[in-house]
Amino acid sequence: MNASETVEITGHLIDTGILSRVLDDIREYGGDWVIDRFDVGHEAADLSSATITVTNDDDEALARLLMRLQTRGVNQVDPGELEVSTCELDGVFPDHFYSTTNLATRVRIAGRWVPVENPEMDCGLVVDVDADPSSTPRVRTLPMSDVKAGMKVVCGASGIRVDAPLLTKAEGSFGFMESDVSSEKPQAVLVRQVADGMRRARADGKRVLWVGGPGVVHTGAAPAMVALVEAGYVDVLFAGNALATHDIESSLFGTSLGVDLAQGRGVEHGHEHHIRALNTIRKAGSIKAAVDSGVLTGGIMHAMVTGGKEFVLVGSVRDDGPLPDVYTDVLEGQRAMRAKLTDVGFCLMVATMLHSVATGNILPASVPLVCVDINPATVTKLADRGSSQARGIVTDVGLFLEQLAGELVEGYTTPRG
Amino acid sequence: MNASETVEITGHLIDTGILSRVLDDIREYGGDWVIDRFDVGHEAADLSSATITVTNDDDEALARLLMRLQTRGVNQVDPGELEVSTCELDGVFPDHFYSTTNLATRVRIAGRWVPVENPEMDCGLVVDVDADPSSTPRVRTLPMSDVKAGMKVVCGASGIRVDAPLLTKAEGSFGFMESDVSSEKPQAVLVRQVADGMRRARADGKRVLWVGGPGVVHTGAAPAMVALVEAGYVDVLFAGNALATHDIESSLFGTSLGVDLAQGRGVEHGHEHHIRALNTIRKAGSIKAAVDSGVLTGGIMHAMVTGGKEFVLVGSVRDDGPLPDVYTDVLEGQRAMRAKLTDVGFCLMVATMLHSVATGNILPASVPLVCVDINPATVTKLADRGSSQARGIVTDVGLFLEQLAGELVEGYTTPRG
Amino acid sequence: MNASETVEITGHLIDTGILSRVLDDIREYGGDWVIDRFDVGHEAADLSSATITVTNDDDEALARLLMRLQTRGVNQVDPGELEVSTCELDGVFPDHFYSTTNLATRVRIAGRWVPVENPEMDCGLVVDVDADPSSTPRVRTLPMSDVKAGMKVVCGASGIRVDAPLLTKAEGSFGFMESDVSSEKPQAVLVRQVADGMRRARADGKRVLWVGGPGVVHTGAAPAMVALVEAGYVDVLFAGNALATHDIESSLFGTSLGVDLAQGRGVEHGHEHHIRALNTIRKAGSIKAAVDSGVLTGGIMHAMVTGGKEFVLVGSVRDDGPLPDVYTDVLEGQRAMRAKLTDVGFCLMVATMLHSVATGNILPASVPLVCVDINPATVTKLADRGSSQARGIVTDVGLFLEQLAGELVEGYTTPRG
Amino acid sequence: MNASETVEITGHLIDTGILSRVLDDIREYGGDWVIDRFDVGHEAADLSSATITVTNDDDEALARLLMRLQTRGVNQVDPGELEVSTCELDGVFPDHFYSTTNLATRVRIAGRWVPVENPEMDCGLVVDVDADPSSTPRVRTLPMSDVKAGMKVVCGASGIRVDAPLLTKAEGSFGFMESDVSSEKPQAVLVRQVADGMRRARADGKRVLWVGGPGVVHTGAAPAMVALVEAGYVDVLFAGNALATHDIESSLFGTSLGVDLAQGRGVEHGHEHHIRALNTIRKAGSIKAAVDSGVLTGGIMHAMVTGGKEFVLVGSVRDDGPLPDVYTDVLEGQRAMRAKLTDVGFCLMVATMLHSVATGNILPASVPLVCVDINPATVTKLADRGSSQARGIVTDVGLFLEQLAGELVEGYTTPRG
Repeated sequence: MNASETVEITGHLIDTGILSRVLDDIREYGGDWVIDRFDVGHEAADLSSATITVTNDDDEALARLLMRLQTRGVNQVDPGELEVSTCELDGVFPDHFYSTTNLATRVRIAGRWVPVENPEMDCGLVVDVDADPSSTPRVRTLPMSDVKAGMKVVCGASGIRVDAPLLTKAEGSFGFMESDVSSEKPQAVLVRQVADGMRRARADGKRVLWVGGPGVVHTGAAPAMVALVEAGYVDVLFAGNALATHDIESSLFGTSLGVDLAQGRGVEHGHEHHIRALNTIRKAGSIKAAVDSGVLTGGIMHAMVTGGKEFVLVGSVRDDGPLPDVYTDVLEGQRAMRAKLTDVGFCLMVATMLHSVATGNILPASVPLVCVDINPATVTKLADRGSSQARGIVTDVGLFLEQLAGELVEGYTTPRG
Repeated sequence: MNASETVEITGHLIDTGILSRVLDDIREYGGDWVIDRFDVGHEAADLSSATITVTNDDDEALARLLMRLQTRGVNQVDPGELEVSTCELDGVFPDHFYSTTNLATRVRIAGRWVPVENPEMDCGLVVDVDADPSSTPRVRTLPMSDVKAGMKVVCGASGIRVDAPLLTKAEGSFGFMESDVSSEKPQAVLVRQVADGMRRARADGKRVLWVGGPGVVHTGAAPAMVALVEAGYVDVLFAGNALATHDIESSLFGTSLGVDLAQGRGVEHGHEHHIRALNTIRKAGSIKAAVDSGVLTGGIMHAMVTGGKEFVLVGSVRDDGPLPDVYTDVLEGQRAMRAKLTDVGFCLMVATMLHSVATGNILPASVPLVCVDINPATVTKLADRGSSQARGIVTDVGLFLEQLAGELVEGYTTPRG
Repeated sequence: MNASETVEITGHLIDTGILSRVLDDIREYGGDWVIDRFDVGHEAADLSSATITVTNDDDEALARLLMRLQTRGVNQVDPGELEVSTCELDGVFPDHFYSTTNLATRVRIAGRWVPVENPEMDCGLVVDVDADPSSTPRVRTLPMSDVKAGMKVVCGASGIRVDAPLLTKAEGSFGFMESDVSSEKPQAVLVRQVADGMRRARADGKRVLWVGGPGVVHTGAAPAMVALVEAGYVDVLFAGNALATHDIESSLFGTSLGVDLAQGRGVEHGHEHHIRALNTIRKAGSIKAAVDSGVLTGGIMHAMVTGGKEFVLVGSVRDDGPLPDVYTDVLEGQRAMRAKLTDVGFCLMVATMLHSVATGNILPASVPLVCVDINPATVTKLADRGSSQARGIVTDVGLFLEQLAGELVEGYTTPRG
Repeated sequence: MNASETVEITGHLIDTGILSRVLDDIREYGGDWVIDRFDVGHEAADLSSATITVTNDDDEALARLLMRLQTRGVNQVDPGELEVSTCELDGVFPDHFYSTTNLATRVRIAGRWVPVENPEMDCGLVVDVDADPSSTPRVRTLPMSDVKAGMKVVCGASGIRVDAPLLTKAEGSFGFMESDVSSEKPQAVLVRQVADGMRRARADGKRVLWVGGPGVVHTGAAPAMVALVEAGYVDVLFAGNALATHDIESSLFGTSLGVDLAQGRGVEHGHEHHIRALNTIRKAGSIKAAVDSGVLTGGIMHAMVTGGKEFVLVGSVRDDGPLPDVYTDVLEGQRAMRAKLTDVGFCLMVATMLHSVATGNILPASVPLVCVDINPATVTKLADRGSSQARGIVTDVGLFLEQLAGELVEGYTTPRG
C-alpha cells in the first residue's frame, strides 16, 4: 500500500447506505481505508460528512479507485490540478482517461470550477479551450466513439469534483416514500406518484420522455398511450422498430398478440402482417408520410406525428424491415437520442429492457426515472444501473397505463369491448 | 407386445390436438398402436371419431396404459366387466386400483352404466352396493387417505367409460376464444370474460369459488375484493393462513407490504404486526368472534363473515400462529374443501400456487377455472395440471381485481389516496 | 413524540449498512431519532458504536419500535427490568408480549443476564422459574400455538439484550466474500464454499441439515444426493410429501419428469405412477418398512433409512396420499422439525420455497444457511427473510449437486447414460 | 365466403399436432374448412395425408391464408402458375409479395420446380431469369431491406410448394426424445445429446455455429468455451459487443460479475474496467490486432482469433464503445451473419435473447438448434419462434458448458480455485 489520498463526502451518509457502498468499492478495488473524521448528522434532516484516507498498491491503482469513488460523490480533499491529454486517434481516449458518472460534475481549470455540460456515464471529459484565454473553457462529456484526434481529454482523478446525490431515502427523487401510503391501494399510489411527476415536469416547463417496448401494444395499452400523447404527457419517445411496427400493424390490420400474452402463452412468429405493415410504411417513405397520405390513421405513432411530438427509433439485429424512420446504425441512433434529452424533466420506461438500458446510459442522474415492467428482473436490472434516481414498478403494463391515463386525462375511460 | 385392446374416442380430435396427446401417451407407456378407423369431422362443427388398437408388453402394462388413455376420454370398444376388489387396510387401495380423472365417468354395474358421483382426480372409485339388490348401486371417488378396510374399490380399466371433453379449442369452456377480441384491449376482454363467467354461474344458481393468496392483500386489491364479496360474487373462499392474517393485520394495524412488492423489492420478515394480529384473533377465539366482538371491523375476512359466506383456511408448515380458524391437519383441510364444492359453477384462483394446485386436485373438470398471477410460471403450472378447462391470465393481481370490481359492482370506483 | 429511550449498537455498522436499516425502521414505525454519539471504527477491522435517542408518539408505540430495533441488535442503554405476564389462555400470548428474533438473546432476571435457550423468530419468551430460588431460571422461545395458560411470558422491550451479528460483509458467515474469487469460475467457487461449510460443520461435531423439494429428483440430482448421504454429509432432511414420493416413484417405476422440466416445458399431472407409489408405501406401513421388506431398494429415502439418518416430512394441502411418514398436522410437523435442530451446524436448502421458509422460521441466526434454486425469486425471498446468515445461489440444482458430490465424495463421478 | 381453394398436406399429421395448428390458422385468418379426405397413417411410422378445401371472404384474404398455411407445409393441390411482379422502389416489395418461411421451398417456373436457394423466414422470393432461356432460373430469398427496384419478386401463393417437416415428435431433429432417457440424469442426457449433435455435424463436414451472450463470461464458462473452441467445436460465433467486451475485460483486468450473479444479486453498472477494456482494443485497432500485438492473451475471443475461427459481432443501442470489430449498422450486421451460414450443421444458442432471435430469423429450419438459458421465458420464446427444430434447455449456463466441455474435450477438467 504505497499510494494514499484523503477524500471526503457529505450527505445522508448513513441513511442512504452510501458509506457502506463506498467501503465496498475500496475493498473491491484492492484498497484499504482509515476513517479520519466522521461528523454524524444527529437528526434525520442533518447531513453527515466524513474524511477518509484511502490507500492502494500504487498510483495507478489508487487513481482508478479514486475515479470509482467519485461515482459515489466522494471527492479528494485536495482536488489537485486537472490533468489533460491529447487524443491521438479518432475514437480512442488517452490512457488513464477519466471515466464519467451521470452525476453533476465540475472540473478545476485555471483556478475555476467549471461545470460539465451534459453529465453522462461512461464517457470521457473533453475540454474545449478557446483561443481567447479570457473566455470560459467548456467541458463536456463525449462518448468514446465520437472523440477525435487532437481533442483534449481529462485524465486521472485530480481536479474533479462530483456532487453526491443529497436526497435521503425517505425523500426519493419525486417523493415515492414520503407519501402517506395508504395500506389498501399501493398500486393506485404508485400510479398517482408517476402522474404527479409528469405534472410537475410539465409545470416546470420540462419535457416528459417515454421509452417503450412492444409490450405497450401487446398489453392493449395503445389507446391509453394515445390519450396521454394527445393530452401532452408524451413529449419524446425512444423505442425500437418493434413498438412502432406492432402499433402500425395493429392499426393497419387489427392484429393483436395481447390475449395470447396475457394468458402466459408464447406467441409464434408467423403473422405475416408484421412484414406487410413494414412494407406498407417503407412504400410510403416514412411514418409521417404514411400519416399525411392517409395510409396510417390511428395508433401511437399516428398520435405522435399528428401531435408534432418527437421520436427516435433505433434498430437492433433482430429487426425485420425495418421502418424507414429507424436508425440502423446504433451509434447514430445514440447520437439522435442524446440530441433529444434537452429539457427532459421526467422519464418513464415501459416494457423494454434494451432501450431502457440504452436511455439510462445517457440520462443525467438528475432526471427522475421510473421503470414499469411485469418482469421483476427487468425492473431490478434497470434500478441497479447506477441510477440512484431510478424507481421500479412491477406490474401489468396494460393496466398501469390504463390507470395512468385515468389519472391524467380528463374524461378518459377504459375502452370496453 | 402380447396384450392388445381396441379403444375408441369421439370428439374434436384434430382441432384440439387431443389425438396427438393420446399417441404421446401410448409411446410414453411403452405401447404401440394401429389406427383401425378414423372418421374425420369434415366441417369445423363436426365431431371426429377413431378406433385404435393399442398393444403393450403384458396385461398389466396394457391395463395401466388403458387407464392412462381414459384420462383423455379414450374408452374400450368392449368395456368389459367392472372389476372390484375389497380393501384390506385402512388408507390403502387394492393393487391395480383404478386411478381416477376429474372427467365425468361412468362404471358398468350389473348391465347398467352408473355415473360416478363426484369426479376428482387421483382417487379410487368406491362402489357402495346396497343390501337391497333392486336399489341402484352408488359409485363415488374417494382419496386414498379416506378409504377403509372392507370397502369395494374398482380395479383395472374394464367396465369404465370416461366422457372426453367435447369442446373445440375455439369454444373453450366459457368462450375465451370465440369472442370478438378487439385488438386494442385484451386485458379488458379477459376481465369482462371472467365477469361474464361469474354472472353466468350466478344466473345458473351456481356458486363462485375463490382461491386466494396473500398477494390479494399485498397488491392492494382488498377493497376490490370486499366490494365483490358484498356484491355476491364470492360464495366460497379457499385460502391459507397468510391471506387471512395479512388481511386482518392490515385492518388492525394498517400495515401493507404492497408498495415494496410493487417496486420489485423483497420484503423482509420483521413486522411483528403479523404475529400480534394472530395473537389478537386467537384471543378472540375465531375470526367470527373477532368480528362479532368488534375487534375486527374491516377487510376481506370481515366481509366474508358479515355476509355469511363460507371459507376454508388450511395451514402449511411455514405458518405462524395460525389463526384459530385454520385447519392444521391438511387432510382434514382437504375434506373441508371437498365439502364446499357442491354447486360451485365457477372458480377464480388468484395469487397462490399452493392452494390453487390443491383446489385443482379436487375440482371436477366441468367447473370453469381461471388462474390469475403476475408470474407466468404459476399460471402455466396450473393450466398444465390436466385441467383442460383451466385458463390462465398473467397480470397484476391488484389492477385485475380493481377492474373486475369495476365491471361487476355497480358504482365501484378505484379508491384513490 | 412523548416517549423516548436511548439505545446503543456496536458492530460493523457502516460496512454492513445495518445503521441505514435501523434508521429505516425508526421511520417506518413513525418514530424519530437523534444520534447522540457515533464512534466510528477507523480501520476496516474496527467496530463502530453508536448511541441514539429514539422517540415515538406514546409508550406503546415506542415499545414496539424498541422491539423492532432489537432485531437489528440495537439495545437499550438502560435495559431496565424484565416484565413478565402470565398467559390466561392456551395458545394465546399476553398483550404486549415480546416477539423474538432468531439472534442470540439474553434477559435480565434478578440481576443476572440469562441466555435464551433456543433462538427462534416470531416466538414468545417463556420464563421457567423454579420453585428453588437459588436455581438459575430458564428462558426459552415458544411458538404461540404451544403456549399454555399459566406460563410466564416476557412482555415489552425492557430487560432484554440481543446480540447484533458482528460479521462484516467481507467476512460473511462462512467466507463467501473473502475468498480469492478467480474470475473464471464463480460457480466452482460457490460449490467449494458450500463443501467447505459442510466439512467445517462436520469437523466441529455439528450436523448438516438439508431442506429439499422435488426438484432434487426432477433435475436428476438423486444419485448425487445419495452419494452425499452415504458419505455422511446429510444428517437430517426436512422435506414434504413430494420429494419423498417422487424419489420413491422414481425408484419403483423409473419415471422422471426431468427432461421435460429441463426443456422448460410444464409437466402435466397425469402419471398415475405417483399415486401407485404412495399406495405401495402406505401398504408397507412406512418408508422404513418398505426398505426393510425389500420393496424399496434405491434412491434418496432408501439411503437415508439404511444410513440411519433422520428425516421429517411435513404435509401440505396439495398432497396426494400422503406417505405414512408424513406429518399431516403442520404444527406437529413444526414441532418435529424443531426437535431435530440440535447440533445443526450448517443448512442447505435446495429447490423448495415452502419448506425453506418454514425452516428459516425456526433456525437460529447462528447457523450458516445456503439456498440453491434456479429461480432468482426464491433465492431472494429466502435471503430476505431476516436471516442475515443466508446466502443464495441461483443455479441449476441438478448440476450444482453433481458438482457438490464431485467435491465432497471421493471417487464420485457423474453417471452418464 | 366467396373464395376457395383445395390444399393438401402429408406428414405425421396427428402425431405432431400439426393439423390442429393448421385448423387454428384457418380460424385465425377468418376462414373456414371442409376436410375432403383424410388418409390416416395406421401405424406409428406411417405418414398421413389430408385434402382440405379452405374458404375465405375474398381472393386476397384467401391468398394470405394460403401463404400462412404454407408455413405448415400445406400446399395447393393445383399449385397454379407462379406470379411475379417487378419491384418499383429499392427496399420495398410489390404489394401481395409472398412472405417466406424457413422451410425448404420450391417454385414452379416454366413447368419446372426450382428449389429456393437459401430458406429464410419473412423474406421475399427473388427470381433471377437469365437472358439465356435454356439456363435454369434461380430463386433466392431476400430481405426487404436488400431488394432493389427492377428485381422480380414472387407474389401471391400460386406456384409454390413448401416441404412440411416430416419428423415425428418422437424423432425430433436430433433425437432428443427417442433416446433411452434414464430417470436419474436428465441433465447429463441433454448434455450428451448436444455433444452428439455437434459431433455428428462435424462428422458430416458441417460447421457448428454458436450464438452467445455475456452470461457465458459471467457464469464462469469462459474456460470451458475456450476448450471447446480449441477442440474445434466452435466454427462460427455470433454475438454482440457485450460478450466480447466482458471476455476481454476479464482477460485484461480479471474482473468478474459471476459471483454476484450466481447469488441472485443485480450487478451495478460502475466498473470502469469495461470502458477501459473497450478503449484498449480500439487503440489496438481490432481484436485480432490486439492478439497479434500481445495485448490480449487469453479468453474466448483470443481463442477464436488464434484458432482462425470466424465471428460476427453486431452492436445494439445500449453498447458502450463499441469494439472496433462490431458492426454498428444492424443491417450490415445481418448481412455479415447471413454470409457465415454456409455449411452450418448445428447451432447452439447460449444466454442471449437478442442475438438468438436474430439468428433464428435467418437460419433455415433444417439446422438443428438448441437454446440454453437459466430463464425459462427465454427458452420458451426462442422455441416458439416458428422454428420447429428448436429445442430448449433451462439450466445454469456455466455448469452446462462445463459439462459439455467434459463430454467433448479429451482431458478437460473443471478448473478449481
